[in-house]
Amino acid sequence: MNEKELTGIVEAVVRDMADVSNMTLDMALALAQAVRKMASEIGVKAVVAVSDRGANPVLVQCMDDSYIASYDIALNKAFTSVALKMPTWKLSELAKPGSSLYGIQHTNQGKIVIFGGGEPLCNRKGEIIGAIGVSGGSESEDTALAAYGKEIFEKG
Amino acid sequence: MNEKELTGIVEAVVRDMADVSNMTLDMALALAQAVRKMASEIGVKAVVAVSDRGANPVLVQCMDDSYIASYDIALNKAFTSVALKMPTWKLSELAKPGSSLYGIQHTNQGKIVIFGGGEPLCNRKGEIIGAIGVSGGSESEDTALAAYGKEIFEKG
Amino acid sequence: MNEKELTGIVEAVVRDMADVSNMTLDMALALAQAVRKMASEIGVKAVVAVSDRGANPVLVQCMDDSYIASYDIALNKAFTSVALKMPTWKLSELAKPGSSLYGIQHTNQGKIVIFGGGEPLCNRKGEIIGAIGVSGGSESEDTALAAYGKEIFEKG
Amino acid sequence: MNEKELTGIVEAVVRDMADVSNMTLDMALALAQAVRKMASEIGVKAVVAVSDRGANPVLVQCMDDSYIASYDIALNKAFTSVALKMPTWKLSELAKPGSSLYGIQHTNQGKIVIFGGGEPLCNRKGEIIGAIGVSGGSESEDTALAAYGKEIFEKG
Repeated sequence: MNEKELTGIVEAVVRDMADVSNMTLDMALALAQAVRKMASEIGVKAVVAVSDRGANPVLVQCMDDSYIASYDIALNKAFTSVALKMPTWKLSELAKPGSSLYGIQHTNQGKIVIFGGGEPLCNRKGEIIGAIGVSGGSESEDTALAAYGKEIFEKG
Repeated sequence: MNEKELTGIVEAVVRDMADVSNMTLDMALALAQAVRKMASEIGVKAVVAVSDRGANPVLVQCMDDSYIASYDIALNKAFTSVALKMPTWKLSELAKPGSSLYGIQHTNQGKIVIFGGGEPLCNRKGEIIGAIGVSGGSESEDTALAAYGKEIFEKG
Repeated sequence: MNEKELTGIVEAVVRDMADVSNMTLDMALALAQAVRKMASEIGVKAVVAVSDRGANPVLVQCMDDSYIASYDIALNKAFTSVALKMPTWKLSELAKPGSSLYGIQHTNQGKIVIFGGGEPLCNRKGEIIGAIGVSGGSESEDTALAAYGKEIFEKG
Repeated sequence: MNEKELTGIVEAVVRDMADVSNMTLDMALALAQAVRKMASEIGVKAVVAVSDRGANPVLVQCMDDSYIASYDIALNKAFTSVALKMPTWKLSELAKPGSSLYGIQHTNQGKIVIFGGGEPLCNRKGEIIGAIGVSGGSESEDTALAAYGKEIFEKG
């Protein structure tokens, strides 16, 4: 995929954002493709998950040779970002020993992830309509990839 | 619900407390309504759970647009408060690395919550007959809402 | 609650139905109250659960002395009714040995219930915006109570 | 996607099949796209899952408004097809009361699906390198869609 094609995808995603109230598969596919392209460029074999506003998964994609464990982690990062309405890197701070949410990672049947790589995704009204979860690189790489996904999803 | 109605609910709850040995649904409904009213006043979209003396749920109520994750958390705060016979904020201290209950959050199939928002509820003899769990605000807000619930439930 | 009050609740629920796209707590509370009233009349100690369109719970209420096991069953009946877009009694047929969905009750981490007592709930456009799950009586009682809930929720 | 594009996708998939020993994401994406196109044509809102030869997921895609329950079912159909090296419709027979594998649906943490919609996928040497799982239509529709996926994946 070249730059022009990626721009086209981003524009199509953004066009759809005007009044959408829930994630669609087309939007999720375009988003995942763009994030995987960026992952390739920085040398990360990522798993990318996108959930809807009910925290149910819309898609998961595992790049070749990605970590088997990343499937659950990416999926749960997307779940967490909708279910707690915040990026998962914020939970890194809040869930430290001595902080207010220490221990939250043990609630919700192990589906709460407390390190970076998950971001809620909003429509133009600022309503959360889904989330992206990325796993496969270092925490800073996953965090950056999820933030990149959020940026291209929401800008326009 | 106006102040007079709330007062009526509280009085009814308190009247029932004289010799009750277990949580009833009517008591739990009145309690949850009062706590949700307070949550609205302080701007928190809360999930409120009430359990009985067997640590089994009597009710769970999710205010509109509350966190999806708060369902399990509120429910588990109520469970924890009966199961360990203490408010969950006490566990924040006890479950820290180096403290006596460090690791307790990994027992009981992930149902132990170690931050504030859960309070055991006693009858007039001081026997625990249930618990309230609140999730949806900051830890201090959840802690305050649970304490408020305990106060109106037990006073009289 | 007398007949007039019940009528008022039903009318309020129906008024809200015009253009709602997801279950609200107020609607769920009114619905649960009406179903519990009917359960009392037929002598059933029921657990009533209501979920939203994302199959996440909005409320659960356990009538005094109801089965402890009914909590999960009612909750899962509501989940199933949204997640498979059909009343759970239909699954009784489809999941029989020799029928097309035999074995479906083992998927979805045990959350699929294949006997009556769950009904999807639609808005006036016919869109599923949640579900009710009832457990506590015989299968025919639970089925009737869920159908009653669906009827009063959707009529108008 | 028009017929020509679909043909192109199928040819690309088939080209890759010569000596591939495991499912790749590109192959899975092309396969899922073709199966979703067919699902649309027959009016099914499907969830499509593709796993690799280790029975681990490579992708899951949920068409808009598909059943929430279908996510786990499609994923588990793909798992089952690799894990037991047979299409899931074969298990319908084998897992009936009185048949040789009766009860197998209770093993493997509920991940064994015993109705149609899962097919193992082989390379040209006849080695299983993954599987497809489809859920969302009737059992015969899911079975036909999975068989269609197998056919376009393996032919050439």
